Amino acid sequence: MSTAPLPPLAAIPHDLVAAVDYARRAPFHLDPRCLAYLNGGAADEETLAANSAAFADFQLWPRVLADVRGGSTATALFGTPLAHPLLLAPVAYQGLFHTLGERATALAAGAMHTPFVVSTLATTRLDELASQAAAPLWFQLYWQGSREAALTLVRRAEAAGYGAIVLTVDAPLAGIRNREQRAGFALPPGLAAVNLAGLPEIPAPPANVPVFQGAMCQAPGWADIAWLRSQTSLPLLLKGILHPEDAVLARETGADGVVVSNHGGRVLDRVPASLHALPQVRARLGADFPLLLDGGIRRGSDIFTALALGADAVLIGRPYIHALAVAGALGVAHLIRVLREELEICMALCGCRSLAEIGPHCLAPA
Amino acid sequence: MSTAPLPPLAAIPHDLVAAVDYARRAPFHLDPRCLAYLNGGAADEETLAANSAAFADFQLWPRVLADVRGGSTATALFGTPLAHPLLLAPVAYQGLFHTLGERATALAAGAMHTPFVVSTLATTRLDELASQAAAPLWFQLYWQGSREAALTLVRRAEAAGYGAIVLTVDAPLAGIRNREQRAGFALPPGLAAVNLAGLPEIPAPPANVPVFQGAMCQAPGWADIAWLRSQTSLPLLLKGILHPEDAVLARETGADGVVVSNHGGRVLDRVPASLHALPQVRARLGADFPLLLDGGIRRGSDIFTALALGADAVLIGRPYIHALAVAGALGVAHLIRVLREELEICMALCGCRSLAEIGPHCLAPA
Amino acid sequence: MSTAPLPPLAAIPHDLVAAVDYARRAPFHLDPRCLAYLNGGAADEETLAANSAAFADFQLWPRVLADVRGGSTATALFGTPLAHPLLLAPVAYQGLFHTLGERATALAAGAMHTPFVVSTLATTRLDELASQAAAPLWFQLYWQGSREAALTLVRRAEAAGYGAIVLTVDAPLAGIRNREQRAGFALPPGLAAVNLAGLPEIPAPPANVPVFQGAMCQAPGWADIAWLRSQTSLPLLLKGILHPEDAVLARETGADGVVVSNHGGRVLDRVPASLHALPQVRARLGADFPLLLDGGIRRGSDIFTALALGADAVLIGRPYIHALAVAGALGVAHLIRVLREELEICMALCGCRSLAEIGPHCLAPA
Amino acid sequence: MSTAPLPPLAAIPHDLVAAVDYARRAPFHLDPRCLAYLNGGAADEETLAANSAAFADFQLWPRVLADVRGGSTATALFGTPLAHPLLLAPVAYQGLFHTLGERATALAAGAMHTPFVVSTLATTRLDELASQAAAPLWFQLYWQGSREAALTLVRRAEAAGYGAIVLTVDAPLAGIRNREQRAGFALPPGLAAVNLAGLPEIPAPPANVPVFQGAMCQAPGWADIAWLRSQTSLPLLLKGILHPEDAVLARETGADGVVVSNHGGRVLDRVPASLHALPQVRARLGADFPLLLDGGIRRGSDIFTALALGADAVLIGRPYIHALAVAGALGVAHLIRVLREELEICMALCGCRSLAEIGPHCLAPA
Repeated sequence: MSTAPLPPLAAIPHDLVAAVDYARRAPFHLDPRCLAYLNGGAADEETLAANSAAFADFQLWPRVLADVRGGSTATALFGTPLAHPLLLAPVAYQGLFHTLGERATALAAGAMHTPFVVSTLATTRLDELASQAAAPLWFQLYWQGSREAALTLVRRAEAAGYGAIVLTVDAPLAGIRNREQRAGFALPPGLAAVNLAGLPEIPAPPANVPVFQGAMCQAPGWADIAWLRSQTSLPLLLKGILHPEDAVLARETGADGVVVSNHGGRVLDRVPASLHALPQVRARLGADFPLLLDGGIRRGSDIFTALALGADAVLIGRPYIHALAVAGALGVAHLIRVLREELEICMALCGCRSLAEIGPHCLAPA
Repeated sequence: MSTAPLPPLAAIPHDLVAAVDYARRAPFHLDPRCLAYLNGGAADEETLAANSAAFADFQLWPRVLADVRGGSTATALFGTPLAHPLLLAPVAYQGLFHTLGERATALAAGAMHTPFVVSTLATTRLDELASQAAAPLWFQLYWQGSREAALTLVRRAEAAGYGAIVLTVDAPLAGIRNREQRAGFALPPGLAAVNLAGLPEIPAPPANVPVFQGAMCQAPGWADIAWLRSQTSLPLLLKGILHPEDAVLARETGADGVVVSNHGGRVLDRVPASLHALPQVRARLGADFPLLLDGGIRRGSDIFTALALGADAVLIGRPYIHALAVAGALGVAHLIRVLREELEICMALCGCRSLAEIGPHCLAPA
Repeated sequence: MSTAPLPPLAAIPHDLVAAVDYARRAPFHLDPRCLAYLNGGAADEETLAANSAAFADFQLWPRVLADVRGGSTATALFGTPLAHPLLLAPVAYQGLFHTLGERATALAAGAMHTPFVVSTLATTRLDELASQAAAPLWFQLYWQGSREAALTLVRRAEAAGYGAIVLTVDAPLAGIRNREQRAGFALPPGLAAVNLAGLPEIPAPPANVPVFQGAMCQAPGWADIAWLRSQTSLPLLLKGILHPEDAVLARETGADGVVVSNHGGRVLDRVPASLHALPQVRARLGADFPLLLDGGIRRGSDIFTALALGADAVLIGRPYIHALAVAGALGVAHLIRVLREELEICMALCGCRSLAEIGPHCLAPA
Repeated sequence: MSTAPLPPLAAIPHDLVAAVDYARRAPFHLDPRCLAYLNGGAADEETLAANSAAFADFQLWPRVLADVRGGSTATALFGTPLAHPLLLAPVAYQGLFHTLGERATALAAGAMHTPFVVSTLATTRLDELASQAAAPLWFQLYWQGSREAALTLVRRAEAAGYGAIVLTVDAPLAGIRNREQRAGFALPPGLAAVNLAGLPEIPAPPANVPVFQGAMCQAPGWADIAWLRSQTSLPLLLKGILHPEDAVLARETGADGVVVSNHGGRVLDRVPASLHALPQVRARLGADFPLLLDGGIRRGSDIFTALALGADAVLIGRPYIHALAVAGALGVAHLIRVLREELEICMALCGCRSLAEIGPHCLAPA
């Protein structure tokens, strides 16, 4: 890894057959500091590891000889039909991982009919992405210290035709990502969050100012959510909820959906795995409120498990960035196809012809 | 392992004393791609590992000073007396592992009075095997896309004197065996499923056709089972059931027996270990319905445990193929003898003079 | 490690960002025998490992969008206001780890407003430390075989202005620290427990005298505690209690506080982790009795967890000695700041504006 | 380990401080095949590992400030006073491990006032050992195929002054010790079970005779126990019981004591750890029947735990043979002293002045 990163592959070799293969190969295609930024999590990375490990706590319960001819993974969210219950999660600064950055991701998303949630911290302009994209685009919003700044960003997303606003609520501060700190990661020159252009900069607090007088004074509150809800007609999702009471508050404050997530274990360590939080959140919300799961998805069987435990759809983050680094848009599209086919096989062998047939009865008793 | 595979041994060295020894030595006698095909399982191979690991969840409960003189491992299945409750599971393409393929396996089975379940995908003709075999032969049937094709195969097995039909129901598609894919395994020239001769070929679906419109349209359903039941007087077993309700359906549809199995973890990953599924299936079926266990057997104590949890007999797959690769028919026969002697010792030290005396009371409380 | 230990660093490099980093780097700055003495525990060091591992049995339960502006980690113990609920535990012979020994520790404690519990076996005089210290100093007392000796030490601490007496009750004998024995550790010439000057020496029992006739005849009893209580007006804490009944006896005998601790796993192995003992002790004592936790703290999230389970404050031992060895007073101060900031982030993201808001409801259900 | 074994040490170096140290050093003092014979167990050695690991399922619960002055580890078994509740288990062929064999063991036992249970398969004559021994000697009896042979051996032990008969009941056959088989162990020329002199040899069954017609026809039954009981006035213990019902049968048949043991995991694998079997056996037998524990003891805390769970005393096997190989009689004596001192410390720190005060209340709640 002391040699220069390899360029992206132009074709998929026969030994790239699963998300884990992209994860194993990504280090050869990335600068070690970028890799530490991408793969690292908060503190000891226990939550990062737990996110994936949690899926092994559940087992599928196959049914044989079921008639599933003509089955499908199709679904819909907020009125938009989706080919499968899989979205590309917001990941910042994708120019770090491929020269085309978010443009390559959007290209793959379009080819595979997969919604792409574009980060506030994208290295490509929202409108440029929208003008080229064939897939639904959603906008992920990081609160920028004021309602005015938030509104400016939302208006830009609306203007560019984005289909939903996903407000991240679990990261009012950056989290202490020790792996990234030890690697000495810094944003390289020439890469920037171009969509923040024209917004007043949030001043970084001096290094010795405590958390409570620093970052937490720039953070949004529930009243800001209610205000934001009143400002746009787009579906509004809150991303980063683990506590069932927060999910209820989200619904009561007017959110249209919730994303159960711990920010990929990047903000606070030693919190519940997303999957473990999911059933409690679904139980409190009841059956019909849109609920997504983010964190730890590496297999089609993980998607199946999340749906069986109450998710309507899932997001993947690091896995598609690994694919982006390894093989660009081609890699991302291939990864999505692999996951979709794995999901189809799980459904077929568990006797489910549609997503609606997936439920807790599809998991083996513990 | 980059050197050529070693030829099979002509004698058993003193350090080959257990199934695990054959597993450790097999890599030296096999092409690495064949080994990946043989040892690999679906996806992350969690179920493959769980199959064996499950046995460690149970412990034998020895009894001392019991009188077990004249005890025996004898049993019977469908009226056929068996020297011990152990069968050789169907394994495809045995010509990959030894130049004599299924002929060597049948020779060992005959020497050790052990039923051999011959695969639809054998590399030896059913009738040729039957003409030389001294052990009971059963026929494993893969549905070939139509009732006509299935009937042709069953008639051939009947004509050759096979004693039972074992229909595999857990593999309507091949499963995504990542290890095998990464190794680049393909059937070498000159090896073929010779028993499919004369049958219409099932067209492989184009690579980008989804599962639901592809393989699942060639799969059998419960109505096909009822039909098959009506076509032959041979005992009919369904192999690959984990769900108790499917076991009940199998009995109601006319099956004479059920094999609890997950196909050695080769089709769908993250499903229950066979052994964990067994007690629930037995509980639903009641005491008398023939029930076999396939998956994870590596020791005589595993056989004992399976019987204590409700199995009438067990099948081994990979272990005897390892023995076949390492030492041909001699290896397979030796392995069977080792397992039988291990089983006898478990019985003797747990105070069981016959298989009928093995029950849940022979396992230590958790 | 066969080369000479490195001198302490004069600045904090960018890859020293957590307590674990100091632990990883300390071996380069210490003689291997000192390291064995510092890091080693009793016997197989199971309790030593369990102390830290226990924290992973609990998970934080974040709340989003809470208003925590102006929050604080401030608290008070025995009327003394504290900037945060963190104290420096008594560690003997700090001259082993840095040429300035306890003086460097006291300097860092003062800079970070952190109480420092000075050991009976300090290599610096109590009064010298007190004359220079900016932080509250407490005095840790090892019973020295007689009430007279104990009183002499207490009077010296009182005279020097120490704020509390912390009597260690879990180490009437040294424990069998196998790692230390195997390393051949012995106190180097020139280092001594200078505060024992003028006290009658406790004769070491001959090597073959059993425990019951040796060390245990020099140990204090509950009556000695009652007597000690009557001799001083300083707050008196008993350190080293795991059993809830002992905590109750401590309170009934007049102690002002209890430190749940197993002496860092250095005296008796295979006893409960401090954290596991904590909730039972708190339950028996009720909400108001001062209760501290010592053992295994490595992260701000560990402090948060201990407080959620009933501790009023925590002590750290080995972590600050690692920092002392690596970077002297600068290292100790930096480590305290890291832990405090980690704690602040936990509080902020769990919606706690003050320590009083931390409770069992802040931990995710198991 | 391809070099010649080292001779025994003549002094104990400072890094030999615990049983694990002898275990780590023994390989340097033994022929690898002897080591495989000594350290190996049946099959996959799960029970062998479980025997020691089981102790970690329990934790001591210390009490502080207790008055234990003048405490003691003294006890008595069958009227014989013992300095501590520790015996040396029967281990066959000790001439394999030291040129003095059982003579060295007996010398150490005498020096440390520790009963030594001499094996039927000792390489030293019973009467020669007795004539030199300062410690109580007990005789372990392997049934030799007939009552006549058993009686001959018992009479020899009585004549030589042995204090008890310990009949092994868990090894009617040798067990399949794969490690030993793979190593090619065989008894070297010149070593023999000299105490079998003059007895009719038990013919080894031909290799292909099943267990039930072979070894199990030479095994004793409960009627033989009743008969043996009637033939001697010495205390009679049955060694190798795990099942509570067998313990009750033992008492009803006239045994004076029971040794809970699985033969060090050498006969049947995947059976309960001795310690896990202990509480159930004690519960069925009631408080007063003599009950010993054999298997997995490596620390004084293990002895304490076994006593807390109902044992009256414990036996060690492999640990003292490691010490014998490493440092002869000196090593065995040193090991016994280490274990006794570890036990004393556990007692002192848990507030137990005598063995009678050790009970379940000394273990922390799970």
